[in-house]
Amino acid sequence: MIYSFKNDYSEGCHENIINTLAKTNNMQEYGYGEDSFCYEAKELIKKKINKYDSDVHFVSGGTQANLIIISSILRPYEAVISADTGHINVNETGAIEATGHKVCSVKTNNGKLTIDNIKNVLRNYNSEHMVKPKLVYISNTTELGTVYKKAELESIYNFCKDNNLYLHIDGARIGSAITSKYNDMTLSDIANLCDVFYIGGTKNGALLGEAIVINNDNLKENFRYYIKQRGALLAKGRIMGICFSELFKNNLFEELALHSNKMSYKIADAMKKLGYKFYAEVESNQIFIVMNNKTVEKLSKDYGITIQQIIDENNSLIRITTSFKTIEEKVDEFIEYLNNL
Amino acid sequence: MIYSFKNDYSEGCHENIINTLAKTNNMQEYGYGEDSFCYEAKELIKKKINKYDSDVHFVSGGTQANLIIISSILRPYEAVISADTGHINVNETGAIEATGHKVCSVKTNNGKLTIDNIKNVLRNYNSEHMVKPKLVYISNTTELGTVYKKAELESIYNFCKDNNLYLHIDGARIGSAITSKYNDMTLSDIANLCDVFYIGGTKNGALLGEAIVINNDNLKENFRYYIKQRGALLAKGRIMGICFSELFKNNLFEELALHSNKMSYKIADAMKKLGYKFYAEVESNQIFIVMNNKTVEKLSKDYGITIQQIIDENNSLIRITTSFKTIEEKVDEFIEYLNNL
Amino acid sequence: MIYSFKNDYSEGCHENIINTLAKTNNMQEYGYGEDSFCYEAKELIKKKINKYDSDVHFVSGGTQANLIIISSILRPYEAVISADTGHINVNETGAIEATGHKVCSVKTNNGKLTIDNIKNVLRNYNSEHMVKPKLVYISNTTELGTVYKKAELESIYNFCKDNNLYLHIDGARIGSAITSKYNDMTLSDIANLCDVFYIGGTKNGALLGEAIVINNDNLKENFRYYIKQRGALLAKGRIMGICFSELFKNNLFEELALHSNKMSYKIADAMKKLGYKFYAEVESNQIFIVMNNKTVEKLSKDYGITIQQIIDENNSLIRITTSFKTIEEKVDEFIEYLNNL
Amino acid sequence: MIYSFKNDYSEGCHENIINTLAKTNNMQEYGYGEDSFCYEAKELIKKKINKYDSDVHFVSGGTQANLIIISSILRPYEAVISADTGHINVNETGAIEATGHKVCSVKTNNGKLTIDNIKNVLRNYNSEHMVKPKLVYISNTTELGTVYKKAELESIYNFCKDNNLYLHIDGARIGSAITSKYNDMTLSDIANLCDVFYIGGTKNGALLGEAIVINNDNLKENFRYYIKQRGALLAKGRIMGICFSELFKNNLFEELALHSNKMSYKIADAMKKLGYKFYAEVESNQIFIVMNNKTVEKLSKDYGITIQQIIDENNSLIRITTSFKTIEEKVDEFIEYLNNL
Repeated sequence: MIYSFKNDYSEGCHENIINTLAKTNNMQEYGYGEDSFCYEAKELIKKKINKYDSDVHFVSGGTQANLIIISSILRPYEAVISADTGHINVNETGAIEATGHKVCSVKTNNGKLTIDNIKNVLRNYNSEHMVKPKLVYISNTTELGTVYKKAELESIYNFCKDNNLYLHIDGARIGSAITSKYNDMTLSDIANLCDVFYIGGTKNGALLGEAIVINNDNLKENFRYYIKQRGALLAKGRIMGICFSELFKNNLFEELALHSNKMSYKIADAMKKLGYKFYAEVESNQIFIVMNNKTVEKLSKDYGITIQQIIDENNSLIRITTSFKTIEEKVDEFIEYLNNL
Repeated sequence: MIYSFKNDYSEGCHENIINTLAKTNNMQEYGYGEDSFCYEAKELIKKKINKYDSDVHFVSGGTQANLIIISSILRPYEAVISADTGHINVNETGAIEATGHKVCSVKTNNGKLTIDNIKNVLRNYNSEHMVKPKLVYISNTTELGTVYKKAELESIYNFCKDNNLYLHIDGARIGSAITSKYNDMTLSDIANLCDVFYIGGTKNGALLGEAIVINNDNLKENFRYYIKQRGALLAKGRIMGICFSELFKNNLFEELALHSNKMSYKIADAMKKLGYKFYAEVESNQIFIVMNNKTVEKLSKDYGITIQQIIDENNSLIRITTSFKTIEEKVDEFIEYLNNL
Repeated sequence: MIYSFKNDYSEGCHENIINTLAKTNNMQEYGYGEDSFCYEAKELIKKKINKYDSDVHFVSGGTQANLIIISSILRPYEAVISADTGHINVNETGAIEATGHKVCSVKTNNGKLTIDNIKNVLRNYNSEHMVKPKLVYISNTTELGTVYKKAELESIYNFCKDNNLYLHIDGARIGSAITSKYNDMTLSDIANLCDVFYIGGTKNGALLGEAIVINNDNLKENFRYYIKQRGALLAKGRIMGICFSELFKNNLFEELALHSNKMSYKIADAMKKLGYKFYAEVESNQIFIVMNNKTVEKLSKDYGITIQQIIDENNSLIRITTSFKTIEEKVDEFIEYLNNL
Repeated sequence: MIYSFKNDYSEGCHENIINTLAKTNNMQEYGYGEDSFCYEAKELIKKKINKYDSDVHFVSGGTQANLIIISSILRPYEAVISADTGHINVNETGAIEATGHKVCSVKTNNGKLTIDNIKNVLRNYNSEHMVKPKLVYISNTTELGTVYKKAELESIYNFCKDNNLYLHIDGARIGSAITSKYNDMTLSDIANLCDVFYIGGTKNGALLGEAIVINNDNLKENFRYYIKQRGALLAKGRIMGICFSELFKNNLFEELALHSNKMSYKIADAMKKLGYKFYAEVESNQIFIVMNNKTVEKLSKDYGITIQQIIDENNSLIRITTSFKTIEEKVDEFIEYLNNL
């Protein structure tokens, strides 16, 4: 394999994180996220989103974040609405159902949920013989790499508030979203348009860690119990504290995501010229293309890519992903390679 | 309201059941389904399906039967495949998910699942990041009143065996299925074409009760633990024993279902003549029609019907259901009424 | 076997119930507990407890009632406190844990929980590393047949209110409790000293059914969703409506329990004279005695009794139970038999 | 605070780990534990325990390891037996119950389970009205710091095999166990005396991570599905791969634990001379002492200690813990401090 565009977690982390880990390694700290680094990181995040009343918690991965958040919000008979491409609906091994809750999935065009999608789901849930949808789940960027516009998010959030629904945003790649050229929101804007969301560290230069941000007071109580019960309260929480305090100093978080997006756009532009058609608009660090299996086979011998979905006997949906550490030279070589494919 | 065609559980039960309840009321029996009536009923059912090695258990309702069966079969990461109209997917308040399992739903034409439907589901479940479908769930009659042909069921069951899947048949209305004029199977045929199924009593003349029949030896062990843990082990199990022993003496079970189907066909024939178009072929005791809301409103003032689904702002899917006790005179009156609607 | 004192659900039901079932059998009623009998029964119960704001729901058994009530009250990290002899702790196949909640059990003298017991449990649950006890569960009569005094219940309920805990009373044998000669409470008194309780029908002359009574407004919302999700919403809910409306007309409920207690006391008095020592005071329709296994073996050949617990290699705890239908002559014969044992 | 003896995860990790993280940071690796470091670490562990057929998986914490292991083994109605002091019974916020399973707890003298303890639990679980104990859980070191002898472990494991039970060993502090002066087993001995266990990294010098080792073939299938479903499949699994490959090179794992134990013994010896009585024999890196609250208050102002349990109004059980990084000078100062307390 020449180089991997398989995903955005193929490399370690940003150097600042390792350096700080090394520098602070001998310090004695409280366990379970009550260390000074976690406190610093929480303050930096609150400052960044300009919401000092929000609660911030760190957990180690996205599935963990989603299952803890969702199961903390819903009563046993309540359900979550998601795009059918949603991570919770497809890629979490039934983690949400394992906590007892139905995911009401709905077909979308490009991974982005609309008010009409939600209304369609709601229309026929009207008695105790059915689950009661109570939470809307969206991802930004979506699982197809698309990005919500401010007007879109506003309309969803307003609809939720009007209909007594909560809104949770899966921000596993929220760095990529806010630095997308299609984006028109700050992280603070997003934070103001949802009840809860999480900021993905793993896929944007952290060693590990996702920062759960709870804005709605109703959802804050005893949240650490949920984290602990699901086995997610890391004894050495300091690691995640260090990751996030480094990422949220000096705009490092945005810089890393920006680089990742730039590399992706460069590849996408080249592919467009070569006549490739994208499965979804390339708005962030993921590129989705349907290819015939022969090309896929050849390509994946030389470069790390992901086969996302089997479309039919002859074609597959593949994913090319760039990361905070993607080397531009390698991108250039890849483009050269594609020209000769 | 003149008369109710709302469902098949509006009336009590067949007289034989009340008479036997009265006659045996003072007898002392063991509790929790170990009474002589349950034993008798189990033997009658095994004889009827000609499968003396099957295990039979009684529980009080269909949702209970489904959730106990399904959660007893699946490992935590395994899932069940169902038509999107399936009772477990729509009408059980997330009961299956509440036991921890995803329902992988798939769109069908008429409520009947095909091999292609199942293949479509299976195709993209191929790693530990997704649930593992392990069980196929079908209903006969389906939730749209349609009935499986023997060839259809055979092909599904063979596919399941070839692909290491189990097959469970929800027989809440299995009496109506085996006495449908479209049917070409005996109850014994059905029993030989699945790993587990249940025979619905509630909707065919019992006071309450569904008979779970487990054919596959792998699924039999400690089944009573599952029943008890879900709160379904009735102390006076004798009631269900009496219901099923009466229903399975002298073909009463078939007679009652046959009557119900006959009444439904009579209504359907009349409606056809009046130009009504059916949402699904009328093959059993349920009739589904899309009507404009004005007609629905008028109709439902005079007769008990069910509004099954809101189609759009102006139209609803309604259901007319006949039962083991539906009075033919009332059917005739209803037809007269429809002629003048 | 000459006669069974195995339990209080060996016989059918009170004749009035069968008669009303027969008389009303052809009436068309709404399903799922929205029938006229359920409404009548609910009104009779509210009148009896003189609490017209309480919500009443019927389910088919005690384990079902407990698991639905408890899982409807607790958040995922919350737990229920119970005597170690409590039905939920021993005899429900982990039904409560299957809904995700720990039962914090505590040793008691006679099956009755005290404030000190509760305090002992609470003392060390003080961080997110432990469950948070939120609900106290008691049974009246207890699983050892003992009965709470009003002062005892008051002190527990007041403690609960002061400590932000809910109180649930398992009334599987509450008929036997309120007609015990040791009792100093009415059903209405009990209803005023708890947040939720259930009135056992199964063990006091009903064909089946337990009436859940929710007094605390916080616990009422969407309760039917919980019932349905656990498979406990009986399609022909009318059966339980009829059982409870018959039991709560003309004090039948108390009369039946009174008879059962009387029969038990008669046996207990005779045994006392014969020198038997009781494992717990005989306050209701259950008698507990430790016997050597030889006697147990002989006795259980001739009479139906329950072996409750294996004490050690040579001794077992047995239970003798009377019912609403226990025949006094048979009791006299049994006493005669014991005299000659 | 002069110095903390609060726990064994107050400091970062061993330097080798940070160095390797830094050195390998830019390497592209597969995600989700399929990286070269995880493979290397797995081989080192298998070599160390001399069991090349065992499966090894890494997860980020002890509660996570326990809940994944236990819920992967048990059928819904099965239960796990544990000492009442067991981590799963006390300190995991009901994580095991949250997966649906009862923990059958039993009082022990010193945190160590015996065959008699297990027999006592088993004796009365004999029907479908009760859970079915299927798994025995022990910790080594125990939650009281005590250590199993080989003969003890052999007798438990043999009993389990004879009684169709599985045995799981919680090895959160297994490093401390195998380097205890009271220990007579190698890690390989332990691995041969259980069906599954985990090796604690977090509390012995890793940044994070516990290595689950599955010896019994019955328990291996699809284990990664369980890990993923519980949100425990770390995207950058390489971190744990690096932690464990460093710890299992050149006996570092034992060296670190040995140091921790030595520091603990030094403190314990000094305290013994001062007349302190230990709550449990000091066999590893934890010291438990009941102290009056006044001393506790003073002590905890100057040194980090843990208040483990409130004994009564005047006394508490405290814990003093040493770690792989505990500085001997600070231990000497602490002893001096105690002499003057």
